[in-house]
Amino acid sequence: MREISLGIIGVGRIGKLHGENIRRLEGVRIKTVSDIYVDAIRTWAKDMGIPHVTDDYLDILSDSEIDAILICAPTDLHTQIIEEAARIGKHVFCEKPVSMELEKTRRAVDTAQANGICLQIGFNRRFDHNFKRLRQAVVDGAVGETHILKITSRDPNPPSADYIKTSGGIFLDMAIHDFDLARYLVGGEVEEVYARGEVLIDDTFRELGDVDTAVTVLKFDNGAIGIIDNSRKAVYGYDQRVEVFGSKGCMVVDNDYQNTAQLWTGGGVYRDAPKFFFLDRYNEAYVEEMRSFIDYIRNGTPPLVTGHDGFQAECIAHAAMRSLKEEKPIKVRDIYERIGGETWNRSR
Amino acid sequence: MREISLGIIGVGRIGKLHGENIRRLEGVRIKTVSDIYVDAIRTWAKDMGIPHVTDDYLDILSDSEIDAILICAPTDLHTQIIEEAARIGKHVFCEKPVSMELEKTRRAVDTAQANGICLQIGFNRRFDHNFKRLRQAVVDGAVGETHILKITSRDPNPPSADYIKTSGGIFLDMAIHDFDLARYLVGGEVEEVYARGEVLIDDTFRELGDVDTAVTVLKFDNGAIGIIDNSRKAVYGYDQRVEVFGSKGCMVVDNDYQNTAQLWTGGGVYRDAPKFFFLDRYNEAYVEEMRSFIDYIRNGTPPLVTGHDGFQAECIAHAAMRSLKEEKPIKVRDIYERIGGETWNRSR
Amino acid sequence: MREISLGIIGVGRIGKLHGENIRRLEGVRIKTVSDIYVDAIRTWAKDMGIPHVTDDYLDILSDSEIDAILICAPTDLHTQIIEEAARIGKHVFCEKPVSMELEKTRRAVDTAQANGICLQIGFNRRFDHNFKRLRQAVVDGAVGETHILKITSRDPNPPSADYIKTSGGIFLDMAIHDFDLARYLVGGEVEEVYARGEVLIDDTFRELGDVDTAVTVLKFDNGAIGIIDNSRKAVYGYDQRVEVFGSKGCMVVDNDYQNTAQLWTGGGVYRDAPKFFFLDRYNEAYVEEMRSFIDYIRNGTPPLVTGHDGFQAECIAHAAMRSLKEEKPIKVRDIYERIGGETWNRSR
Amino acid sequence: MREISLGIIGVGRIGKLHGENIRRLEGVRIKTVSDIYVDAIRTWAKDMGIPHVTDDYLDILSDSEIDAILICAPTDLHTQIIEEAARIGKHVFCEKPVSMELEKTRRAVDTAQANGICLQIGFNRRFDHNFKRLRQAVVDGAVGETHILKITSRDPNPPSADYIKTSGGIFLDMAIHDFDLARYLVGGEVEEVYARGEVLIDDTFRELGDVDTAVTVLKFDNGAIGIIDNSRKAVYGYDQRVEVFGSKGCMVVDNDYQNTAQLWTGGGVYRDAPKFFFLDRYNEAYVEEMRSFIDYIRNGTPPLVTGHDGFQAECIAHAAMRSLKEEKPIKVRDIYERIGGETWNRSR
Repeated sequence: MREISLGIIGVGRIGKLHGENIRRLEGVRIKTVSDIYVDAIRTWAKDMGIPHVTDDYLDILSDSEIDAILICAPTDLHTQIIEEAARIGKHVFCEKPVSMELEKTRRAVDTAQANGICLQIGFNRRFDHNFKRLRQAVVDGAVGETHILKITSRDPNPPSADYIKTSGGIFLDMAIHDFDLARYLVGGEVEEVYARGEVLIDDTFRELGDVDTAVTVLKFDNGAIGIIDNSRKAVYGYDQRVEVFGSKGCMVVDNDYQNTAQLWTGGGVYRDAPKFFFLDRYNEAYVEEMRSFIDYIRNGTPPLVTGHDGFQAECIAHAAMRSLKEEKPIKVRDIYERIGGETWNRSR
Repeated sequence: MREISLGIIGVGRIGKLHGENIRRLEGVRIKTVSDIYVDAIRTWAKDMGIPHVTDDYLDILSDSEIDAILICAPTDLHTQIIEEAARIGKHVFCEKPVSMELEKTRRAVDTAQANGICLQIGFNRRFDHNFKRLRQAVVDGAVGETHILKITSRDPNPPSADYIKTSGGIFLDMAIHDFDLARYLVGGEVEEVYARGEVLIDDTFRELGDVDTAVTVLKFDNGAIGIIDNSRKAVYGYDQRVEVFGSKGCMVVDNDYQNTAQLWTGGGVYRDAPKFFFLDRYNEAYVEEMRSFIDYIRNGTPPLVTGHDGFQAECIAHAAMRSLKEEKPIKVRDIYERIGGETWNRSR
Repeated sequence: MREISLGIIGVGRIGKLHGENIRRLEGVRIKTVSDIYVDAIRTWAKDMGIPHVTDDYLDILSDSEIDAILICAPTDLHTQIIEEAARIGKHVFCEKPVSMELEKTRRAVDTAQANGICLQIGFNRRFDHNFKRLRQAVVDGAVGETHILKITSRDPNPPSADYIKTSGGIFLDMAIHDFDLARYLVGGEVEEVYARGEVLIDDTFRELGDVDTAVTVLKFDNGAIGIIDNSRKAVYGYDQRVEVFGSKGCMVVDNDYQNTAQLWTGGGVYRDAPKFFFLDRYNEAYVEEMRSFIDYIRNGTPPLVTGHDGFQAECIAHAAMRSLKEEKPIKVRDIYERIGGETWNRSR
Repeated sequence: MREISLGIIGVGRIGKLHGENIRRLEGVRIKTVSDIYVDAIRTWAKDMGIPHVTDDYLDILSDSEIDAILICAPTDLHTQIIEEAARIGKHVFCEKPVSMELEKTRRAVDTAQANGICLQIGFNRRFDHNFKRLRQAVVDGAVGETHILKITSRDPNPPSADYIKTSGGIFLDMAIHDFDLARYLVGGEVEEVYARGEVLIDDTFRELGDVDTAVTVLKFDNGAIGIIDNSRKAVYGYDQRVEVFGSKGCMVVDNDYQNTAQLWTGGGVYRDAPKFFFLDRYNEAYVEEMRSFIDYIRNGTPPLVTGHDGFQAECIAHAAMRSLKEEKPIKVRDIYERIGGETWNRSR
């Protein structure tokens, strides 16, 4: 088994998470990590046994020993780095969204494909044990033809105003995970989007032109209807439930809980809340995501999330944004056609 | 306690159900039942100890001993009978919908009010133990301000083509229960409706200009967003789940099951399906509904479902029908204003 | 369908309950009720439409129009009334236990059998929807050969000192339900009993020679082992859960709850307690119990609970009492043989 | 943070498991592993980056750089190695049971204590997230005074005949985990034991003088009663549920499941079985166990499982074995006093 050498570009929370998870995989090492705040990551890198630290990600790209990179840098750098890496043949794992602009995303995905590199996008939920089980039920035909998909997706706490400002809004930052999951679970493409949003939690969202509560209706090309609800603040913790209803049955996926204990008292039955933080809930999913990326590079195993998947989810997010603004349903094709091209019908 | 004397107009499945449930109440008797197929109900009436049977509902209306009537006849007779009863001072319980035409509904409700009779509409779900508990949580403030309401409402089997033909369509026949429940649970009025529907189960629906699968998004005047999904065929049985998500928490109401038994085997964990039939699920709710009607008549206790509630739910259904047809969100006010008037702002 | 005429002897809480439930059955009427506190029951009887009230139960026994009686009088009168009724051919439903003394119970059961009357004992739990489902799984072979039976049986509140004094103790008063349920679910006979008890709730039990917390181990003739735990005070309500573990699987039966609502808040997940009172939990089971008794009388349908079942449960209770006292396992045969006879092997 | 250097003696399944889990801890390295089948572990050790492999555990004991050892060798070597390690001041983590003979266990525990080494026994369940939550509820007083403790503990498959032969029997091999958990959860000592066992699964157990199904009743010094049921074969997977019932409430701990997905179909509701294998169920508990051991060595943090705990659980197991044989309850003191001494009252 050939050892695979990795570089991580951007070592914030998610970069560190991937770094730590990679330790649990065999035959992989992280050679170099880069961050503009290079001093802030030295201790972490040392504890992790990572030999090289730099403030210039080009040191990683130019290192011929490094096989692949993880892009955990700010979103506005994503496509540039993807294209640079593609041109020199380095494989890329890139956090979502690929970019804020569909044209850029498309060009990056096309560049990756043209150069034959492996490109995987960070939609970690596809690797979650519950959602994988649900996808399996759909593939096995256990629910029959899909009629209705329902996704509940709520965060425990709103992000900071600074984060919101550059996030791209609730659809491109948060619901994009659900748009990807919707496509993955249904196994079809979204044709039309209707979105409704409100500011019910914090006026900061309004001031920044965003909403904190949203509902999105998706019409799939196989007739299925999807409904997603998002909230930036669920006081009881991270709430991620999904349901696929079809001609043969319905599969319902609940949250994961901290433990199974129930306390029965005179006041009723009590149990601890669901896992509160997304890193707890998706802990193992993140490990699986890295395992899948390595398997993609090493063995060419088709990835669970391609660059094209990243692009499609962004199309849906842009359609939702337009629907919210124009107060009517929007065809995804209209979004896509604005940037031209035949990619739309490309098979997944 | 004065005995209350009732007449039932229309003795099909639902008329019989109410008749049997009334037996469990004290101080109430059914004096007369009417049905155009009078021979078909004689045995039932005898077994029930109901002394008089007729094929002419006017026999009931003209009987001065009868205090109140239950209208379980076909929908197109509802408003006429309500108005006749109102004018002679008989109280009325009327099955939903009041009528297929908003103008007729409104006139019947106005006539009832002008004549001071008790008028209650058959939205039985308000009396369900689960939904009552959920309403209580909203009223108590346990979920805080309502942000998102989700209703899942699916029937175990589609009705016959004959039924569909005269049903008024999925929104006026089936989802109307959910529209009423939505208003009840949220405690606010619906301002805008977006509906999407598909024929995924049986082409008969398409042939009859109806859909069998639908999703409706409701915008409430307090900012809350409601999402309802309906299906005419859930193979696992009657599926009625509701969730209210708010600033302080989320209350989730599950189906009722036939029993609590779980069988654990090598193949996994198995339990019997939810109660399959709406009469099983809402068995006790129907009894409570009659108890409430009698309490309304006897003691003037404000009813849980007024004629105005019947009218409002119909407005939402008509808005949903138009949204489906025009493929855009519809303001409920636009529906209402088409038939003129100030009723919209009338308090419940 | 011939109408069956009943008399009820003893109109306390349970006598009234049966009376009210009988109203929901067709083709049955209660002709006479008797109670030594006759004035206390007149209003109830009138509201119920029961024509005759007496303070002498012999008025019921001597009425040739009455087909069957319900014995809801104090336990020390049970066997005497059973024998009197048996000798004049009246069918008997008798509350549990049949008596405090095995000899008396056996003689009453023998007398009933010798005179060919229907005799059913009030073990209502056999009629519960959950336990029936569990029994069905055992009969169907879904759990395979039974290895372990577990019964949790806890009351919400201890009875009064007066009640405890004459109750016969926790095993003969309370656990006897579980002993019967154990035999019913396993479908075998108990050979040996080991019981352990403590006073952990209220010293009154100790003063009266009783315990308030008990554990009983049953060895069945088919090798299965049963474990029952009883408590006189479960603060969260009536707790009745059962589990049958076998070679092919395990069926677990949970409590019934007041509703299915779950409230998720920052403090965790909350739901209302199980049904608190045995009359709520076993409401429908009591109706089924009466339906079964009438079906036994009218059609000779084999009863779910015979006089022999009453006797066997009492044998187990007496064995448990002796085990607690002598601090060692007791063979049920030793209990039985003390009163002589071959009945032990009589098939159910 | 000083790096701690470990040696593992015995590298079978459990030795490897601990080795892999230690990789996830910071500041710890495994220097040497020993096994009599040394060739079989070379590849594993290399993949794990463990520098030294030997067939002689004395190489580990004599290495002054090694701070502590993990004893995962066969049970009959445990006490000898503990004593050798203790005399040269190496800390010891030892798998359960310490030995098959109480005298040996006691001597080993005394030797460890006399030499002041850290000694921790491998009762991994104390580190399980569910049981920790339950213990917390007891400590916090949420269940009040403990009245009844119930442990269900069933394996998915019986071990091989070879394993059974040297296992020490169901109580010393399997139920000993439950005896330890019982003491831990209740926070009291067991005074008396009654055990009942049967061979219901496989006659091999009978031939080897063992049982495959057992029930144990424990009387605690604080009045609480414990009931444990064990089976060597639960077809649906590893079944580990616990319930503590007390004066203020009841806490119930369920199994962990593979996922939260439920499939609702016409045939009922289905979900995947509980985690089938103990390594899946207790995966994180094993990591916590090692973390606790390192914390004990490094910081002197009181261990969750002492040598004394190992001894006490063995006393209960020996009492259960005698109870099964003599068919009567056995006082634990009688077991203890047979080997002499005052240790019984030693506080934990």
